[in-house]
Amino acid sequence: MGKSPEAPIDALGAMRARVDAELDRVLRSAEPREARLVEAMRHSVLSGGKRIRPILCLASFEAAGGEGDDAIHAAVALELIHAYSLVHDDLPCMDDDSVRRGKPTTHRVYGEGMAVLVGDALLTLAFDVLAREPEGSTVLRESRLEVLRKISHAAGIHGIIGGQVADLAAATTPGDAAMIEYVHTHKTGALIAAAVWAGARLGTDDPDVLLRFARFGEKAGFAFQVVDDILDYGERPDEPASYVGCHGLERARERAERLIKEGKAELAPLGHRAQLLWKIADFIVARAD
Amino acid sequence: MGKSPEAPIDALGAMRARVDAELDRVLRSAEPREARLVEAMRHSVLSGGKRIRPILCLASFEAAGGEGDDAIHAAVALELIHAYSLVHDDLPCMDDDSVRRGKPTTHRVYGEGMAVLVGDALLTLAFDVLAREPEGSTVLRESRLEVLRKISHAAGIHGIIGGQVADLAAATTPGDAAMIEYVHTHKTGALIAAAVWAGARLGTDDPDVLLRFARFGEKAGFAFQVVDDILDYGERPDEPASYVGCHGLERARERAERLIKEGKAELAPLGHRAQLLWKIADFIVARAD
Repeated sequence: MGKSPEAPIDALGAMRARVDAELDRVLRSAEPREARLVEAMRHSVLSGGKRIRPILCLASFEAAGGEGDDAIHAAVALELIHAYSLVHDDLPCMDDDSVRRGKPTTHRVYGEGMAVLVGDALLTLAFDVLAREPEGSTVLRESRLEVLRKISHAAGIHGIIGGQVADLAAATTPGDAAMIEYVHTHKTGALIAAAVWAGARLGTDDPDVLLRFARFGEKAGFAFQVVDDILDYGERPDEPASYVGCHGLERARERAERLIKEGKAELAPLGHRAQLLWKIADFIVARAD
Repeated sequence: MGKSPEAPIDALGAMRARVDAELDRVLRSAEPREARLVEAMRHSVLSGGKRIRPILCLASFEAAGGEGDDAIHAAVALELIHAYSLVHDDLPCMDDDSVRRGKPTTHRVYGEGMAVLVGDALLTLAFDVLAREPEGSTVLRESRLEVLRKISHAAGIHGIIGGQVADLAAATTPGDAAMIEYVHTHKTGALIAAAVWAGARLGTDDPDVLLRFARFGEKAGFAFQVVDDILDYGERPDEPASYVGCHGLERARERAERLIKEGKAELAPLGHRAQLLWKIADFIVARAD
């Protein structure tokens, strides 16, 4: 990677292509009875999306000093978990959304029962993939198990699912500022923070460096959700668990910018190795402009 | 463990109590916002059930020569996966069941959206628990990752979920004998076979011994589902994917007995160490008398 202004953008594009190729590879089956399920899983994962979690994972891996293919499984697993959470979130008994990324949602195409199973299958596949070891891997199995625990923690009741339960409750009882921060840090922030941490953990054993990545990940994750709220505000101004609804547009923008600035400062000691992560952080907040 | 006829029964009771205590321990949270979710998870897991999968795992671990607490996490994870699959299977968009083990199903008590999240949370927790290492563990991390892959495989599209998709399809297109065998070996058999294999893998590194456990587990898993069909036949004689509906009661009984006999023969070289597993195998087929 050179230091011309375009280099990070090229690197991001290359990472995205690597992630999409690996997703395409793991979402296959030779068994005819599984064909429709696999088709529905592919519909749910491969029809668009920014791949922000896997890219953050791969970029953190490289920024932490990692080389080779040791983070690709974690990257792919993070996207599978993100996709499963969207499929279940879109169900009629949850948010009841019929369109996602400009296409009909999984349950609209394949039916509700199938959509439940598709989500279950994507979540299960994520852990299957996380437990795989690339040939010639130099990562200690201890680190791999740590990454597995971090990601399952971020996906579980203390992370995504906890956030979704609070969000579901907010639909009937509008939330206060503390509840909104809880939903945000859990529903979206936890998996983004885990993506950063997992990549870094696979790339380094240095606890001080890991701590910097952990702080960067937490701030980037929260900023990402605040920006999502800013973007949603135009479409759904009465969303119950919205940062903008609670604090107003201006304070939301300020908060996102401050979080990203603080996050970038954490990585400053890494020098040019953090260049790509800085760029991704800038992208996150730039979406709100 | 002595050799009196009651000893295996006592040992089974003790294993069940160990599993229930550990399930109770992992299904807790100090965060008030998670209280209702955790309550719903406990309702789904702790209200009855035979614990056949965790007991098979622990008994296989000991029969393979394992000692100490190294199989308890796998045992608990298997029960969490079984419980999640029941919660999702009972949903209105799947089998639409309102009673399970004599109590109202999760979605009847907590609502559909919550039941989807409860299943997701149980599945995620299962992998979290699987990636944990008991203090002072002597199991190689390589074996732990292998067990993780085996269990995720049995839970995924080539196992439980594949069987459920075929079962869902059978509701509209009644199945032939090959389809019924596919549903059975996948929906129920795969996780039972994985329970046996996981326990054995954590207890031994000997590939020949492991192969015997693998064959025992496959036969026990299939027999278990055939017996379930025999028990269900009285209540739902028109069940589309039923072994009894396809082959008749007498042939179903014969098949279950033959499978258990063959399975037990696989473990004969283990001598008295296999005593408890033989007993469990006998219980499986005795349920059909």
